[in-house]
Amino acid sequence: MTVPKNTNNKEGENLPYKRKVLPNVSQLAQAVLNGEKASLARAITLVESAKPDHWESANSLIEKCLVKQTNSIRVGITGVPGVGKSTFIETLGKNLTAEGKKVAVLAVDPTSSKNKGSILGDKTRMAELAVDPNAFIRPSPSGSSLGGVARKTRETIILCEAAGYDIILVETVGVGQSETAVSSMVDFFLLLKLAGAGDELQGIKRGIIEMADAIVINKADGNNVKRTKSAEVEFKRALQLYPPKDNGWVPIVHSCSALHNSGIRETWDVINEFVKRTKTNGNFLKNRALQNEHWLLQTIEDHIKTRFYGDTTIQTKLAELKGQVTQNKISPFRAAELLLELQRNKV
Amino acid sequence: MTVPKNTNNKEGENLPYKRKVLPNVSQLAQAVLNGEKASLARAITLVESAKPDHWESANSLIEKCLVKQTNSIRVGITGVPGVGKSTFIETLGKNLTAEGKKVAVLAVDPTSSKNKGSILGDKTRMAELAVDPNAFIRPSPSGSSLGGVARKTRETIILCEAAGYDIILVETVGVGQSETAVSSMVDFFLLLKLAGAGDELQGIKRGIIEMADAIVINKADGNNVKRTKSAEVEFKRALQLYPPKDNGWVPIVHSCSALHNSGIRETWDVINEFVKRTKTNGNFLKNRALQNEHWLLQTIEDHIKTRFYGDTTIQTKLAELKGQVTQNKISPFRAAELLLELQRNKV
Repeated sequence: MTVPKNTNNKEGENLPYKRKVLPNVSQLAQAVLNGEKASLARAITLVESAKPDHWESANSLIEKCLVKQTNSIRVGITGVPGVGKSTFIETLGKNLTAEGKKVAVLAVDPTSSKNKGSILGDKTRMAELAVDPNAFIRPSPSGSSLGGVARKTRETIILCEAAGYDIILVETVGVGQSETAVSSMVDFFLLLKLAGAGDELQGIKRGIIEMADAIVINKADGNNVKRTKSAEVEFKRALQLYPPKDNGWVPIVHSCSALHNSGIRETWDVINEFVKRTKTNGNFLKNRALQNEHWLLQTIEDHIKTRFYGDTTIQTKLAELKGQVTQNKISPFRAAELLLELQRNKV
Repeated sequence: MTVPKNTNNKEGENLPYKRKVLPNVSQLAQAVLNGEKASLARAITLVESAKPDHWESANSLIEKCLVKQTNSIRVGITGVPGVGKSTFIETLGKNLTAEGKKVAVLAVDPTSSKNKGSILGDKTRMAELAVDPNAFIRPSPSGSSLGGVARKTRETIILCEAAGYDIILVETVGVGQSETAVSSMVDFFLLLKLAGAGDELQGIKRGIIEMADAIVINKADGNNVKRTKSAEVEFKRALQLYPPKDNGWVPIVHSCSALHNSGIRETWDVINEFVKRTKTNGNFLKNRALQNEHWLLQTIEDHIKTRFYGDTTIQTKLAELKGQVTQNKISPFRAAELLLELQRNKV
């Protein structure tokens, strides 16, 4: 007997092999709030899931975790490959856990799936921190869209804070737009640099210097100390070219040797001073509120753009009009009107 | 006798005092293409009109003018008030008309209606150029939205080129986002500066230096010559901090005295060299095509955002959710979803 094609086989959907056990969100949230590491990892996996039937649970989980009031500090750390980010983060992290702090290390790296400039691909890069009971390390969520990766990392920050992590270190590699995304989710943004041969400032990506709250020159050890000092002078000079930040903070330049754990204490003092000052002048919470608003509007705008450009009729017409516009056959404003009209008529 | 309220008084609409004589677009376009200055002014007024029933005519006019192939050069000029922009533009413009070129001077100044930092409010600032038969000066279109002002100026460029103007100088004052808009509508972007007392680089707005194809230090005259030379060195040093531009152009720094017409020839030589090189390596036309595409996408995105945020239901809900988001009651991503859902359900 043939089952008619239009039979909605509801029973089939309930067959055991088709079922996906969704976690009990309330229990999972409670376990995260209790600081259970395995549950935190599981919660992050849920938030990172690409399956639409996991979204509602993920949203509900985040909401249950948002209630927790925390005193966390979120620090973004960037620098080109080879600058010693892992050693720096491991040394800073170990100093902090030794003080009794709980430290989470996250990463934003949209290229990681393409294996290019990848960071935090495995925990062996921070071998000691990885086995520290007060540290939690999580590689970058996968995905080639920065928007998606950034969103997941931002929600992971909430989960880590709910699980009692005081310090959230968000690592990013200096490519593309990742730094902008990371600087929009942290309280303090740190640029790690190396002293070069007189050309310290060459090749710094536009815009990164002005995002930095501190520039830390790593590998100030052995023969390199003198060069590091002159790099410090160069960077201080370069920072003078920029007007002061809106929060009144004047970016700090100093050097360190992550390998020999020297200067790392100073970095932490700088971050604490920043937090103290911005909490006093109200900019700390103001910045977090503005960041929340930024992500709200950014998400809406990404969605409405994706919806517009995702329409196949629009795509076809857009390609045609782009050609006419670049050949000066039609004004770009007129072409935009035609596309907007096309969309209105479809609704 | 009383006219019933629901009578659609068609005849009333045709009463002489209610009629607005729309220009005959074909005739107007032809007059513009013939280079008639009065018609060019009238055409620009049509393009600047805020009346919806003028839009179709304006679009049609632009299309008729786009057909003209021109060899125009579009130059953006920015600098803070007091730097001598008017004198610079007048001197440069007179040099060019003396060579037989036709020069149009436009402005992008969204603040002009608010009388703050206003430029080109009247033609008396460029008294000699204003009476030059080969020059055409037009103040900034009014409007407080940069998008609207930029669009009108961009279409005015098309009209001026159709009317035979070879050189289009677009002036902007160094406030807000105007420079970005102007740099997206010109071939060459020039930053006019003054030598200061050793702090030449202080207070330069972020991002402006990296937009500039040339930095010209004005008022290199009298006692100021020495200071201007040291400012030149400072700026050259500052420009080295930036990576080379995608089109291969290395920005030029030099000084001039617009008042004494010295160094202005050099500025023009630099612009010509830029045009020659970018035309040879293909970047000149590539940049114009990219600019057209930029304005197409920008216009679409401005519209869809305005449509979304312009909805009163969305506005009410957005205000409520913004409050919850900044107070950490709901995640910004969840709030965005709720708003997008609200909009979808309305359609």
